[in-house]
Amino acid sequence: MEKKRAPFAKWMGNSNEITRLFLKAGQIPDMINLAGGLPEASVYPASELADIAKQVINKNPEETLGYCPIEGLPTLRDAIAKKFSKGNLKLSRENILIVTGAMQSLDLVGKVLLDDGARIAVQDPTYLGALDAWRPRHPTLVPMNIHGHNFNPASLLENTQFAYTVPNFSNPTGSLVSKECRQQLVDTSNDCGTWLVEDDPYGVLYYDSDPIPSMLELSADENNDCYEGNVIYMGTLSKEIAPGLRLGWVIAAPEMINALATAKQGSDLCTSGLSQQITLEAINNGLMEKILPNILAIYKSRRDGLCAAMEAYLTPYFTWEKPVGGMFVWAIAKDPKLNTDILLEYALDHGVCVTPSSVFDPNGEYRKAIRINFTHNPLETLEQGIKRLAKATEQLKL
Amino acid sequence: MEKKRAPFAKWMGNSNEITRLFLKAGQIPDMINLAGGLPEASVYPASELADIAKQVINKNPEETLGYCPIEGLPTLRDAIAKKFSKGNLKLSRENILIVTGAMQSLDLVGKVLLDDGARIAVQDPTYLGALDAWRPRHPTLVPMNIHGHNFNPASLLENTQFAYTVPNFSNPTGSLVSKECRQQLVDTSNDCGTWLVEDDPYGVLYYDSDPIPSMLELSADENNDCYEGNVIYMGTLSKEIAPGLRLGWVIAAPEMINALATAKQGSDLCTSGLSQQITLEAINNGLMEKILPNILAIYKSRRDGLCAAMEAYLTPYFTWEKPVGGMFVWAIAKDPKLNTDILLEYALDHGVCVTPSSVFDPNGEYRKAIRINFTHNPLETLEQGIKRLAKATEQLKL
Repeated sequence: MEKKRAPFAKWMGNSNEITRLFLKAGQIPDMINLAGGLPEASVYPASELADIAKQVINKNPEETLGYCPIEGLPTLRDAIAKKFSKGNLKLSRENILIVTGAMQSLDLVGKVLLDDGARIAVQDPTYLGALDAWRPRHPTLVPMNIHGHNFNPASLLENTQFAYTVPNFSNPTGSLVSKECRQQLVDTSNDCGTWLVEDDPYGVLYYDSDPIPSMLELSADENNDCYEGNVIYMGTLSKEIAPGLRLGWVIAAPEMINALATAKQGSDLCTSGLSQQITLEAINNGLMEKILPNILAIYKSRRDGLCAAMEAYLTPYFTWEKPVGGMFVWAIAKDPKLNTDILLEYALDHGVCVTPSSVFDPNGEYRKAIRINFTHNPLETLEQGIKRLAKATEQLKL
Repeated sequence: MEKKRAPFAKWMGNSNEITRLFLKAGQIPDMINLAGGLPEASVYPASELADIAKQVINKNPEETLGYCPIEGLPTLRDAIAKKFSKGNLKLSRENILIVTGAMQSLDLVGKVLLDDGARIAVQDPTYLGALDAWRPRHPTLVPMNIHGHNFNPASLLENTQFAYTVPNFSNPTGSLVSKECRQQLVDTSNDCGTWLVEDDPYGVLYYDSDPIPSMLELSADENNDCYEGNVIYMGTLSKEIAPGLRLGWVIAAPEMINALATAKQGSDLCTSGLSQQITLEAINNGLMEKILPNILAIYKSRRDGLCAAMEAYLTPYFTWEKPVGGMFVWAIAKDPKLNTDILLEYALDHGVCVTPSSVFDPNGEYRKAIRINFTHNPLETLEQGIKRLAKATEQLKL
C-alpha cells in the first residue's frame, strides 16, 4: 500500500528523463563523457591551494571558520570590485555580492525578481542550470534568437522581469554575442527598465581574439563611482581556479545587491569563510593570471583536436561552427528527421555520452542538435569519443 | 527622477526594521552583543583544521577541488549514516543529503514542499531563519503551542505540508520538547501524512542530562535497513566544529532526499568538496568527540553565569527558566505594557544588543520577551551586558 503523505510542490512534477539517463551513464565502465561542462582536473593549482588553505586558517581562524557577513568578506568584495573596474566601469564594495557558486546567483535572481508565472526573455537555446534554477517559479520563458538577422529586443524585453544571456561562448552553443547585440540589449534595457542577467563563466576562455566588452562595461556611466546600471553580472571561480570551492560573485547596482543579500540570508546565510579567504589570497597572489596561459593552451588544442575529429568522422551527419572560446561545440543534424534524444540512447550503447538539445530548449522540444564538451578529456579520448558517436549515428540512421 | 525598473518579487516588500537595527548595532564600538547565535570562536579546532585542509587537497585534489555529486560525497554520506544509526534507526547512504549549512536545508524543504500559500505548522515562537527561508513562498503559518497543557497536534497537522520544530533547546526559547510531545507528533504524522521537520543544531549541547530521543529515532521502523519515516532531520557542523565550513546534512526517507537533491541542483549544484573532505576527515579522526567536552564546559559555565547575573539584576523586570542546554535564555517581561521592540532601542543606547520576540513570532506581533545568547561572550562581558540591559529597562519604565 502506498503511504499517505503530503505531496511535493507542483514544479517537482516536471521531471527530466534525460537527467536520469546521464546518471545511469555515469555508472557504465569505459564511458567517454563528452556531455558535462567539466574543467580538466590537472589544471587545478592543488599544491598552491593546499598551502593557502592551511595558511589562511592559521592566520585568521575566527574570520575563516566563523560566520561571514551575508554579502561576503569586505576585503574580498573590495578585491573583486578592483579586479573588474575598467575604463568607464567604476565599482565599489556595494556593487559586489559573494555567492556560493554561480548557480546560486541564478537561484537568487529568481527569488528576488520572479513572482509565479513572471516573464523572462532567454537566449535560445538556454543553459540548463538556469532553467533548473527558475523552474520553482513557473516562469513564462520568452526565447530570444539573439543571432538572428533582425534581432530586435524591444518587443521581447517589454514587461519582462529580466533578459538572460551567456554572451561569451554560450552554454550550449559556444557562440559569441556580438558587441552590436550587447549594445542593443543595453539600450533597450535602459528604455524599458528590464534587468539584464549577464552570466559569464567563460569570459576568460577566449582562444583566438581579444574579449568583447561585457554588457556590464557597456552599461556603465563614467560619471558614477558606483555602478548603477541594469546589468546583473555573474562571475565564478570554477573555470579559473577550481569548482570545488563553490565561489562566485554578482556585480550589480547596490539596490540589486541588497535585494540579493536578503534572499541569500534565507538561502544559506553566507558563503564559506574558508573559500572566501582562499579566493582573496589567490587574487592577491595573482594565482589566476599565473595558471591561465596553461589552461588556454590545453583547451585551445583540445578544441582544435575535437573539431578535426568531427571533420573526419561527423561531416556526413552534422554541421557546426568552430567556437572561438568556451568549452563546447554545438552540432546540428543535417537530416531533419534525426532525433538527438534517441541518438543519446544509441551513443550510450556505444560508450559515449553527449548532451541532446532538448534539455536546453525553453520549451523542451528542439531535438536536432547535440552539445559536445572539449575541455575535460585528452585528445585521444576526444577522437575516440567522436568515432563512437559517428558509429552510433550511422546505426541510428540504418 | 526615479529610474524605471522591473519590480522586485512581492515577498521582498515584507521588510524587517529589526534587522536594520541589528546591522546598525554592529557598527557601534564597545557594543555587547547578546543578540546573535554565535559560538565561542576559541573552541574552533583551528590548527587541526588547517592541517586537515592542506592534507585533503594534496591527497585528493580532483575530488576536493572538482564538482561533487549533488547529494554529497558518497564516503561522507556513509559516515553520517553510520554516525546517526542507533537502536531501531538504521540509516543507509540513500537517507543522507549533504547541504551547504543547515539554512540550506530549510530553503530546500520550502522548495520541494511549498506551493504559494501552503500551510506549515510551526513551533511558536519560531526560529527567525526558518521564517526567512519560507517567506518567498508566502506560506500560511499555523502556530503550535507545543508546551501547552493540552497539546493536540491532530487538528494542526491535518492538511499541512509539514510541522517545524527545534525540539532540542528551541531557538529562541531554549526549551526542550518532551519525549511525550515528540511521540505525539510522530504518531499524528503517521496518521495524516504530514512531514515533520526536526531542526537540530543544538542536539549535542545538553549540559545537565542525557539526550531525549529524536523524532527521527522515534519514527524509525526496526524492520527497515533504510529509514522510510516522515521525519526530515537537519544537522549541522556549525555548533560542533565551525560554521565557516558551511556544512550540514539532511536525514530523511530516500523519496525526500531525491526531491531535495533535485532542488539543490538548481540552488548551488553541490556543496564544497573541500568542506566535505575536511568534515569526513574530522569525523574519521574523532575530532568532534575530542573537542566537545571543552565546548560543553565553557557553555555550561556561561549559562550559569548569565542566569546568576539575570537573577541579580533582571528579577524586577523579567521571568525566565534556566535552560538545560542550547545557547539561549528566553526572558518574558513581568509588566504586560513593556514593549521589547522599544526596549531594544534603549538597550542599544546603553551598549547592549538582545533579540526582541517580535522577530520570532509567525505573526510578527508578540513584543513581551527577549532572547539572550550566552555562548559567545566571556563571563565578565555577560554580566556587564545584563547590567546595561537592566539600566535600559529601568529607564524605559520611567
